Amino acid sequence: MVEHSSLDAMFLNKYCPSSASSSSSSSASSSSSDREKRLLHALRGSLAKKYPQKSGEVLSAQYGINLLLVGVSLMLALAYQGPNASEETVLAFLTALMLVQLFWMVCYMVRRERRRSVPPERDANAATSWIRGGLTMLALLSLIMDAFRIGSFVGYQACVSAILGVYPVVHALHTISQVHFLWFHIKDVIKRYETFERFGVIHAVFTNLLLWSNGVMTEAEHALNDHKKRLVALGYFNFTVDPEEPSCNCTTSACSMFSSSLYYLCPFNIEYHIFVSALLFVMWKNIGRKLDHQTNQKRGSSGGSCLLLGPVLGLLALASSITVLIIYIIHVEESAEAREAAVSMFYCFGIVILASMSAAGAVGLLIYRVEDWPMDTTPNPARTLDAKLLLGSSVGSWLLCWCSVVAVGGAQSYPSYRWSNLAYALLLVLEKCVQNLFVIESLYRRRREPGECPTHSATHGEIFSVTASMAPPYDGIVNHAFESSDRPREVPESSKADKTTFDKKTKDVSLPVGHGAQDSPSRKRQILKNIAIFLFMCNISLWILPAFGCRPQFDNGLEEASFGFPIWSTVLNFALPMSLFYRMHSVAALFEVFRKI
Amino acid sequence: MVEHSSLDAMFLNKYCPSSASSSSSSSASSSSSDREKRLLHALRGSLAKKYPQKSGEVLSAQYGINLLLVGVSLMLALAYQGPNASEETVLAFLTALMLVQLFWMVCYMVRRERRRSVPPERDANAATSWIRGGLTMLALLSLIMDAFRIGSFVGYQACVSAILGVYPVVHALHTISQVHFLWFHIKDVIKRYETFERFGVIHAVFTNLLLWSNGVMTEAEHALNDHKKRLVALGYFNFTVDPEEPSCNCTTSACSMFSSSLYYLCPFNIEYHIFVSALLFVMWKNIGRKLDHQTNQKRGSSGGSCLLLGPVLGLLALASSITVLIIYIIHVEESAEAREAAVSMFYCFGIVILASMSAAGAVGLLIYRVEDWPMDTTPNPARTLDAKLLLGSSVGSWLLCWCSVVAVGGAQSYPSYRWSNLAYALLLVLEKCVQNLFVIESLYRRRREPGECPTHSATHGEIFSVTASMAPPYDGIVNHAFESSDRPREVPESSKADKTTFDKKTKDVSLPVGHGAQDSPSRKRQILKNIAIFLFMCNISLWILPAFGCRPQFDNGLEEASFGFPIWSTVLNFALPMSLFYRMHSVAALFEVFRKI
Repeated sequence: MVEHSSLDAMFLNKYCPSSASSSSSSSASSSSSDREKRLLHALRGSLAKKYPQKSGEVLSAQYGINLLLVGVSLMLALAYQGPNASEETVLAFLTALMLVQLFWMVCYMVRRERRRSVPPERDANAATSWIRGGLTMLALLSLIMDAFRIGSFVGYQACVSAILGVYPVVHALHTISQVHFLWFHIKDVIKRYETFERFGVIHAVFTNLLLWSNGVMTEAEHALNDHKKRLVALGYFNFTVDPEEPSCNCTTSACSMFSSSLYYLCPFNIEYHIFVSALLFVMWKNIGRKLDHQTNQKRGSSGGSCLLLGPVLGLLALASSITVLIIYIIHVEESAEAREAAVSMFYCFGIVILASMSAAGAVGLLIYRVEDWPMDTTPNPARTLDAKLLLGSSVGSWLLCWCSVVAVGGAQSYPSYRWSNLAYALLLVLEKCVQNLFVIESLYRRRREPGECPTHSATHGEIFSVTASMAPPYDGIVNHAFESSDRPREVPESSKADKTTFDKKTKDVSLPVGHGAQDSPSRKRQILKNIAIFLFMCNISLWILPAFGCRPQFDNGLEEASFGFPIWSTVLNFALPMSLFYRMHSVAALFEVFRKI
Repeated sequence: MVEHSSLDAMFLNKYCPSSASSSSSSSASSSSSDREKRLLHALRGSLAKKYPQKSGEVLSAQYGINLLLVGVSLMLALAYQGPNASEETVLAFLTALMLVQLFWMVCYMVRRERRRSVPPERDANAATSWIRGGLTMLALLSLIMDAFRIGSFVGYQACVSAILGVYPVVHALHTISQVHFLWFHIKDVIKRYETFERFGVIHAVFTNLLLWSNGVMTEAEHALNDHKKRLVALGYFNFTVDPEEPSCNCTTSACSMFSSSLYYLCPFNIEYHIFVSALLFVMWKNIGRKLDHQTNQKRGSSGGSCLLLGPVLGLLALASSITVLIIYIIHVEESAEAREAAVSMFYCFGIVILASMSAAGAVGLLIYRVEDWPMDTTPNPARTLDAKLLLGSSVGSWLLCWCSVVAVGGAQSYPSYRWSNLAYALLLVLEKCVQNLFVIESLYRRRREPGECPTHSATHGEIFSVTASMAPPYDGIVNHAFESSDRPREVPESSKADKTTFDKKTKDVSLPVGHGAQDSPSRKRQILKNIAIFLFMCNISLWILPAFGCRPQFDNGLEEASFGFPIWSTVLNFALPMSLFYRMHSVAALFEVFRKI
């Protein structure tokens, strides 16, 4: 009731200050000075009121987007002029953003500490423990990368700008406090100073997004240099590749070790920033949200099941991918024939793994059609974002695939891997479609509650008619009355009153459940768990390959002939980072699916 | 009750086929053949059931996205190889898509005709009459463009491919049937064969999007050729510009008239396709949606008000922009000094108009803060899409602006328009932010109902506590009991039952409304209407300028020096179409705001 009274007060304060003040002063004279006084009073009252949520969202979103675009334009200028003068500008800009975010996070944590007696509401579905654990691991690798950067700066400090030393220090501090923030505050549903906090959180989202962009750009530059070196080594071109090291000599003995290790740690740093960005975005969406306390609790997954085929095949895929990676990296620089063989090997491996993944996903979808568990349609920003990110990040590699198909279709040359390239591209499109469907359907499916299948009778029809009218405007009908307290669900406030009525009506109804239905679902769940773990490991394999240098789209030459190097490298630089993010996000989503089944 | 019974049946069919069938066969022997029969039966039952909405959405979305990407990859190949061989491929692909869409639309209309006795539900907020009227005008211009294309084909048919004649014919048929579809079916909320229709509608969305992309690419190519011709004429470069006409002679006397007219009609065709695409997307979102029939009605705007300053200033802006356009087009090709003067003139005009628009928008926002009308938070896919499109399409010109800022900051040369370029860029960012806030807040605000401001009393606190618990999880509390039948609102089904209870409780409550509050709101509404009409006309002006050739970003040289021609032209080709769409979409949204106030 306390919540309602405060809502009343809010309502009254929000909607009727002018009427209250105007009724009290309606008897005063209508002179212009009185009107001015009233206007000033109304203005002061209005500005002190809560800023509308929608406007607050739009305002903060615009701030964030513009921040991102400032950074992107600086990076584009850097890309044109090369790493001479502008790298310092970009790093200085990023350092400033990180310091602002640090300041905001510290203020937030201090404010929370002071109001420790009033614990904040928390969204149970945002940022599960294992996601935060995984991110902490990535953050540790990121800290090691910062340490190497500092070591590299110490070696070259005679001839490089000071910002190259300041940046990794600030980045390390930023990473440590961000990890602390992730563990203790990421689930908070902010209800005080909403408009201000929206700016703080969106600033954090886009700072991480810019750090991700910077990492991606550095990676792309490095990959392009590698590609050029290979072409020069194979004798195709005769230009000098820009050296990546500074002009002075290193004063320590570990510079080359630092430089080469940085390259291997970079992918983890990149994934860390984009994931944190997504989690902070969910926090931003949660600001001002009203949760249903009874149902906003996570539920652990059901007991152990027979996991054999899935993990075994998954480990096989993982081991094969590491082998393919090593062989590819070695052979692609040897000679033209070795390069062609390496590319063919990659495509054959890809065809096998993608066909298996597509088949596994299709079996999972078929099980869902047969078993037909009900859909969970309650509002869940984290899940909605998951689905949108999966679809959005698939766009990159779908574009690559269709470009490959067009290139193979109109090719003038006929290398040996032409048709395997085509098959790989088409299978990649299919595999992503099937996997997206499987993951999203898994996230939206829920288990049938024990009493959820009544017999066909008129009485039950009437009872369920109440529920039907309560149904949110999605597919299927959600039976709130049978919710157990450990079910992760947030329902609109409106259904609470009706739930009590419904509970009273259905107490004495006994609902039969067939025995046969209980055996096969557990076997089907075993199959689904195996599928989930298999796909989980295959996605890790398909992340490792491009993240550590296996990028045949650069090396096979077909697409470059059809689109030209400028267009094709632009498409690759756009699509490959999205593809890497897709794989890592699928890994996270499939683990969630595995725990949920 | 009929609806509830059918929902019950759906529920029972959906959730419990396996339990129903398993309970009926639980007494049978548990041999493997019986299990197989049960599995087949369950599978058949499952496949006959309704496909889950979420999965249907994901499946159709993936189909649409891949369709778009196939088209984009063909266009990228065309961009590299030039308009020699691949233009026919692209046109053939688009023709095939249009024929498929035509076929689907005809089938849909025939099916609707057969079920004329059962009129479909309609979303009152989708595609208002004036939007459809505007689109019909754009479609007419598009048909004229098709006629000119056919005329041009007839003149050059000796040496051009037949597809260049087939394409405009199919496009004309497609346009006519699409306009018919827009007038009679775009508001339909599809409830039968949902999964199939999702594919049909999404196919239509992405076909129009691809036609838009094709138009944009053609336009960009034309603008680039113009730019090159100017540089050659001014003596900067010495290359030959590719001729845009075919190699043979024209057999009619009107070819050049057709070619030049095509260029002026192209912008309308482009805007037509992107708008239709957005309307069809709203239709796709509406598939399977449950509307509240009582409140799904549009409301006309309030009576006439004093409109003087807004229209006058708006017409002044429009007249000035046309003058600026003509002077710019003439002078930019004359000499280097004339070009510099033309660009400076454009920036000065831009600064004045953007400053005025920002001030007007800010006044509007201030009025909303003072007047504090309640927010309308009911679900409305059309409005949500409007807001997202406004923010999304702003990204293009915000990127251009920040690139200009970076370019001016790091410029090596110092032309006279350097600082006006900087001021223009910053004002453009500000103007778009303010305008977005104003438009979105206007779309989400609603008028206060006559009895909406109660006095502060405990009784009212109790009454509103019921309402408060019904509040959707957004800012403010929506008082459903005071809805009049002509208010455009869709509320969740859940609040219907409570509304009746609420109505009974509040019949005898008399709620005071101050006199003073009624006078100033109508004056404020007048001011808002003037602001809306002024912004409406300014946005038309700012659409006309780049649509018909006034693009100083190509001509001022500053950004090209900072980013290089490849990067800068890519950014322009991405950002300018988005900017044009933003202006046209703002025009539509501001007209909606004007009618709503």
